[in-house]
Amino acid sequence: MSTLVTGIAELVTNDGEGEGGLGLRREAALVVDAGVVAWVGAAREAPAADRVVDLGGRAVLPAFVDSHAHLVFDGDRAAEFTARMTGQRYDGGGIATTMAATRAASDDTLRNLLAQRMREMRSQGTGTVEVKSGYGLTVEDEARALRLAREVTPETTFLGAHVVPPEARGDRTAYVELVTGPMLAACAPHARWIDVFCEPASPYAFTGDEARVVLEAGIAAGLRPRVHGNQLGHGPGVQLAVELGAASVDHCTFLSAADVDALAGSGTVATLLPGVEFSTRSPYPDARRLLDAGVTVALATDCNPGTCYSTSMPLVIALAVREMGMSPAEAVWSATAGGAQALQRSDIGHLTPGARADVCVLEAPSHAHLAYRPGVPLARLLDLGAEGGPTSDPTVAAPRS
Amino acid sequence: MSTLVTGIAELVTNDGEGEGGLGLRREAALVVDAGVVAWVGAAREAPAADRVVDLGGRAVLPAFVDSHAHLVFDGDRAAEFTARMTGQRYDGGGIATTMAATRAASDDTLRNLLAQRMREMRSQGTGTVEVKSGYGLTVEDEARALRLAREVTPETTFLGAHVVPPEARGDRTAYVELVTGPMLAACAPHARWIDVFCEPASPYAFTGDEARVVLEAGIAAGLRPRVHGNQLGHGPGVQLAVELGAASVDHCTFLSAADVDALAGSGTVATLLPGVEFSTRSPYPDARRLLDAGVTVALATDCNPGTCYSTSMPLVIALAVREMGMSPAEAVWSATAGGAQALQRSDIGHLTPGARADVCVLEAPSHAHLAYRPGVPLARLLDLGAEGGPTSDPTVAAPRS
Repeated sequence: MSTLVTGIAELVTNDGEGEGGLGLRREAALVVDAGVVAWVGAAREAPAADRVVDLGGRAVLPAFVDSHAHLVFDGDRAAEFTARMTGQRYDGGGIATTMAATRAASDDTLRNLLAQRMREMRSQGTGTVEVKSGYGLTVEDEARALRLAREVTPETTFLGAHVVPPEARGDRTAYVELVTGPMLAACAPHARWIDVFCEPASPYAFTGDEARVVLEAGIAAGLRPRVHGNQLGHGPGVQLAVELGAASVDHCTFLSAADVDALAGSGTVATLLPGVEFSTRSPYPDARRLLDAGVTVALATDCNPGTCYSTSMPLVIALAVREMGMSPAEAVWSATAGGAQALQRSDIGHLTPGARADVCVLEAPSHAHLAYRPGVPLARLLDLGAEGGPTSDPTVAAPRS
Repeated sequence: MSTLVTGIAELVTNDGEGEGGLGLRREAALVVDAGVVAWVGAAREAPAADRVVDLGGRAVLPAFVDSHAHLVFDGDRAAEFTARMTGQRYDGGGIATTMAATRAASDDTLRNLLAQRMREMRSQGTGTVEVKSGYGLTVEDEARALRLAREVTPETTFLGAHVVPPEARGDRTAYVELVTGPMLAACAPHARWIDVFCEPASPYAFTGDEARVVLEAGIAAGLRPRVHGNQLGHGPGVQLAVELGAASVDHCTFLSAADVDALAGSGTVATLLPGVEFSTRSPYPDARRLLDAGVTVALATDCNPGTCYSTSMPLVIALAVREMGMSPAEAVWSATAGGAQALQRSDIGHLTPGARADVCVLEAPSHAHLAYRPGVPLARLLDLGAEGGPTSDPTVAAPRS
């Protein structure tokens, strides 16, 4: 069944043309057939279709691609957040708290929490989410996290090298051997990606040498590499990511000139996560510097219970504009096409013929409103229902009989 | 028909007790009868009622009170926002653009826009909104704005002294005479409040002397005073507000020690509007200094098309915690009880017996999540439906037969 989506005041196609590469079209329409974009053009030239959706002057963009999220966990750390914001001492255990709660949770508990977080993301316009393991940190718990994550997204990432867990801190080498040995073997069947928290500034994260061992083992097991790097201080994360051809290096707050040059000359995306700096009251990465150097920038939430428990890509866009020197157009590109590139996906992040019909509708006439109207729930996914099946979207008219 | 609302993991009563005066109760319940809170207590001690709402472990707080909003306008200024954020020159006309669009709009256009903005606010947990005139700036257009605003809220504010409009800039004295004469006469029947933008730093706002004339005329006509003051620079706004017994002085970014002392010794609330600083990339007011001095602080959106087109009280709370040194508890108090005090209302902003049953439900177990989970649409109003009538709230069970 084909669907004509019309009444689009502004369509972000991300075809690379015009302002920020957004390929903006005014008074536009698109046709969706079998879950794929079949036609894009001016509303007045639209072909006939089996049914019509009239968006009444709303803006449309590709669904957000959230390429960095930690969604498999139990418990929250609101007390830790409050202590941090109010300058109180807090020793509630940090990530170890989440690890313990996650290990103790049943499959069904984790499955329900994951489903709830996915619904929350979709309700804000996110169409694709990367989900990492990293709160299990045993063979069984990491494999379970990825098995559950695979039920909700193909973009699953093995992050056994998130931190060295408390029980393994006496012998880091043995933990790296566990991660690259039995844990990787158990996890690889459920994962597309391997990731590592490369941060020499943190005693429980991984050095450049350790990170290299982890990533190379993952690559040998058929996984594609991505890296957490340069978040808390200068370090080897960016250079390692570029050298190993990682899809993305994420955080990128502390960058040398050589780091920026390396990124600019590479196919590695710099993924910025400003929700973390918002929620930890830290300095923001310098997106402007990266963009001006020609680096490809993606934006993602880093949704996690410790440093940013937000699922909101619209908030990330507003922060990118307010705090990181990005224009609204650049931020929207990075939250859609940039995220797709960070996941090496060519079928999402744009709305040109052949793309997946992951369509985000705004209660606003332009993409700029995502930054202009911060905090307002403007974005939702267009629900076209199953093939010929029912849809709950209020703008979808009944099929023409 | 009485309704028992139970399954409340954490109830913010704002009864003045405990952390931040929030009067928190865990595992609580409340009974609503005839639109009023009839009983509050432990869930296990709850009395019987005609129907039951089980919130399944969610947090409940008083609906937000947004005591500062400019909702009667047509058009948007997204291009001006984008230019400001990207450091581009822009001379699109600023407030004069909104004035022209608002004057040109039909009653029905403005009524529909106002209804849409009210719906947007309510969908984010706001129960009471103050609405100002101030984009008409003629006798007819100001009276019309207030007449339309009165259709949606009792908290209407005459702001003929928003700016001196372009056509009146040759003779400011004549404009003040218009505002305090025929415009006031036409507007007073539709307004509860009078407000003035007292800001000597801005050539089109009003000096202390002009502001005094405007406020005293309003008071003589039976309106209660409130003031926009000390936003762009030091000035007489705060002192004037305190002297005239204004309910609130709003913005308060540039305060002398004498200003803080005056507020602390007064019944005048300091209303902070951090969405403005977010959207204009300006320095935030120092809430911590005010709170430590004993000043009563309210938080509001200032929703307007020029400097903050946000309706989101949750965003304001998150910004207050991130940027202004408020604890989550203080921010929640200021967005509820603080707003009520800024509107001199004793029936809202708390959930103790006798209060209006304006109830905000969070998709979270604690008020702290409003700051801990920025950007996520957690808040909604509990819809109890009309007296015995239908409700669309999914947590409301059918009446017991």
